[in-house]
Amino acid sequence: MNVQGQPTRTIRAGRDLVEIIDQTALPHAFVVRPLRTLAEVARAISAMQVRGAPLIGAAAAYGIWLAMRADPSDGALDGAHAALLATRPTAVNLRWALDNVVARLAPLPPGARPDAARAAADAIAEEDVAINRAIGAHAHALIRAAGARRGPGEPIQVLTHCNAGWLATVDWGTALAGVYAAHDAGVPVHVWVDETRPRNQGAALTAWELGAHGVPHTVIVDNAGGHLMQRGQVDVVLVGTDRTTAAGDVVNKIGTYLKALAARDCGVPFYVAAPSPSIDWTIDGAGDTSRIPIEERSPDEVMTVAGTTAAGDGARVRITPAGSAAHNPGFDVTPARLVTGIVTERGVAPASREGLARLFPERAAAARGTR
Amino acid sequence: MNVQGQPTRTIRAGRDLVEIIDQTALPHAFVVRPLRTLAEVARAISAMQVRGAPLIGAAAAYGIWLAMRADPSDGALDGAHAALLATRPTAVNLRWALDNVVARLAPLPPGARPDAARAAADAIAEEDVAINRAIGAHAHALIRAAGARRGPGEPIQVLTHCNAGWLATVDWGTALAGVYAAHDAGVPVHVWVDETRPRNQGAALTAWELGAHGVPHTVIVDNAGGHLMQRGQVDVVLVGTDRTTAAGDVVNKIGTYLKALAARDCGVPFYVAAPSPSIDWTIDGAGDTSRIPIEERSPDEVMTVAGTTAAGDGARVRITPAGSAAHNPGFDVTPARLVTGIVTERGVAPASREGLARLFPERAAAARGTR
Repeated sequence: MNVQGQPTRTIRAGRDLVEIIDQTALPHAFVVRPLRTLAEVARAISAMQVRGAPLIGAAAAYGIWLAMRADPSDGALDGAHAALLATRPTAVNLRWALDNVVARLAPLPPGARPDAARAAADAIAEEDVAINRAIGAHAHALIRAAGARRGPGEPIQVLTHCNAGWLATVDWGTALAGVYAAHDAGVPVHVWVDETRPRNQGAALTAWELGAHGVPHTVIVDNAGGHLMQRGQVDVVLVGTDRTTAAGDVVNKIGTYLKALAARDCGVPFYVAAPSPSIDWTIDGAGDTSRIPIEERSPDEVMTVAGTTAAGDGARVRITPAGSAAHNPGFDVTPARLVTGIVTERGVAPASREGLARLFPERAAAARGTR
Repeated sequence: MNVQGQPTRTIRAGRDLVEIIDQTALPHAFVVRPLRTLAEVARAISAMQVRGAPLIGAAAAYGIWLAMRADPSDGALDGAHAALLATRPTAVNLRWALDNVVARLAPLPPGARPDAARAAADAIAEEDVAINRAIGAHAHALIRAAGARRGPGEPIQVLTHCNAGWLATVDWGTALAGVYAAHDAGVPVHVWVDETRPRNQGAALTAWELGAHGVPHTVIVDNAGGHLMQRGQVDVVLVGTDRTTAAGDVVNKIGTYLKALAARDCGVPFYVAAPSPSIDWTIDGAGDTSRIPIEERSPDEVMTVAGTTAAGDGARVRITPAGSAAHNPGFDVTPARLVTGIVTERGVAPASREGLARLFPERAAAARGTR
C-alpha cells in the first residue's frame, strides 16, 4: 500500500540484504532498517520490528537466505531453522514458512542453496501478496453488501481490532485488504480502529497505515466498539486471526471475543480474514480450543504505555500503582458460533468444519488422514 | 475505607472549606486539595478531581453551600445550580442532589441559607455512606453465593469495570462496597480490575484504593475480561452505574456493555450496584434509553495516556499518529436483559420495571404520576 504516495511493502530483498519497516518506531517515525545476517533477522522478529503472522513467515524465509549466503552447509541450515523458529514460538505461519524453505534446500548441494533460498523466500512473499489480494477481493464484496443500507456517498462503516493490515503482511493485509480494495475502487469507507491495548497495535499501526494510504479512520478505545454497534454506527466488523481451527473457532488478539459478542447482539456481521496458512487443521471440535496455548505476555505491557512526549521524544509511562499486579493474556478464542464467515483466498466460508472443508477439501482430507 | 491504615473519606467539610482527595493525582500521589468557592468546586468536578456519580452529587451540594456563604441571594442560588449542573451531563445524582438542596433553600430567607445548605450537604454525604453500607451488606451475600464453588480459603473472583469504589462515593463505594464488606469479614476475595481506558480509572483508582485497603487484586486490560470469564476465572461481575432507568437498563462507563455480554455468554452473574439516587424513574421502556445523553469527551483522552516516567515524573504520551482522529463516547447502555440483578440499599431487584418498583413503590408511583 502507499506511504507518501509511493507503493510500499513491509519487506523488500535487495542483492545482499533485506530491508524492513521497523514497526517499533511507528507511528511516530518511518524507519527502513537493513538486515544483513541471520542474527539481525532473528532479532527483528523477536523484537517485533516485524510482526504479524504472514510477515513473520516471509521474514524468516529471507533469514534462511541470508544464512545460506554466509554458510550453505547442512549444519548452518539446521541452525538457521532452529534460531528462527525460536523467535516467536506461537506463530503458525513461521513454522510453515521455515519447513517449506528447508524442505526445498535440504536435497540441494550447498552451492545451489543461496539462490534457491532466495527464490523460495521470494515465492513465499509473492504468495502472501497473492493470497491477501484474493482475500481483499472477497472482503470488498462483503463490505459493499454490509454497507448497502448507506446512502450514496455515505461511508460504509468498518470496525477492526488490532493490526491485520498490510503491516502484518508483505502487502494488502488480511482484514484490511478488503478496505483497501474498496477504497481504491472509489467506494467511500471509514474504519473504526480499536486501539488494542496493551500494545496498541491499532492506535500505532492500523491508524498509521490507513492514514498513509489515505483511508478515513477514527481511533477508539477498546471499550467503545459495543456502544457504536448499538447505535448503528458499524456496518461490518473485520478482524484477522493468528490461528483458526478446522471447526472455525478463531484465535486472535485479546478482546476480539468481546467485539464478536457485541456484533452478534447488535446484528452486525462479523468476518474473520484467514489466509489458509493460518488455519490449523489439526485442532477441531468443540472444547478442543482449550488445547491452544494462550501466550502469557509480560505484565509490564499492562502496567505501562509507550508513546511520545509533547517534545517528540519516545517515552514509556507507568499507569498502575506500585503495589498492584497485572495479568496479560495475549489472545482469546472467539467461538465459531459468533463468526458470520471466514474470508479466505478461495472465498468466504461459514465458520464450521463443513464450511472450511468445502473450500479446502485437500487440506481437510490430509488432516483427517494424520489425526 | 483505609489509607495507610487510617479510615478516610473522599470529601470532608471544614468550617469554611471542603477538602477533597484530588483523584487526578492518583495513583502516583495522594493529594488532599482545599476548595473554597463555587468556582473551585465546579472546576474540581469538571476536571474530574472528584468523580463518581455519588461523590459528584455530594460535592455539588457542598458547592451550593460555598456559593451561599459568598452570596445567599436568589440569583446566586440559581446561578450555582446552573453552573454545577453543567459540569457533567450524564450523572443523574448531580441533578438529584442539586434539586434536593435548592428545594430546601429556595423558601428560606437568604440569611438562613448558608447554614441550611451546609446541613443539606452533610445530610446528602451521610445518606450516601449509609446507602453504600447497605448495598455492601447485600452485595457481600451475593459475592459469597457466587463463590460457593470455590474451595475453603480459595479466593472468590470478582471482576469490576471503571471505579465504583469508595473513591466514587463519600465512603464504601457502590460496586466495591460488597468486596470491602467481604474482605473485612475475612472472606478471601480477589478483584480483577479492568484498566478502563481512556481515563484508566480502574488502573489508577480502583487498583489504588483496593491496595490501600489491603484487598488482593490484579489489573487487566479492558480486552481481557471476556477471556477470563471463558476460562472460569471470574465468579461474579460487579459494576456501578451513572444512571439506571426505571426499566433496569444501566448507563455506566463505556465498555460495561461488553463485559455484560461476556458474563451472559459464560454464565457469570452480572450485578449492578445502584444507589436509589442513581435510578432515573423518568426514563422507562424499551428504546427510551436513546433519550439519555451520552457524554462525548475530548479525543485527547484517547490519543494520549497519562502516567509517570521511570524517574517518577508525571507525563502524558501520545499513542496515535499525528493525522488520525479519535472519538470518545464516555458511557454505554447495558440492556436490562443482560443484568442478573440490581443491588440497591433496599436489597437486590431483578433488572425490570416490576423488580425496581417492588423495592421503591413510592418513587415508581410518583414517577407514574408525573409522566
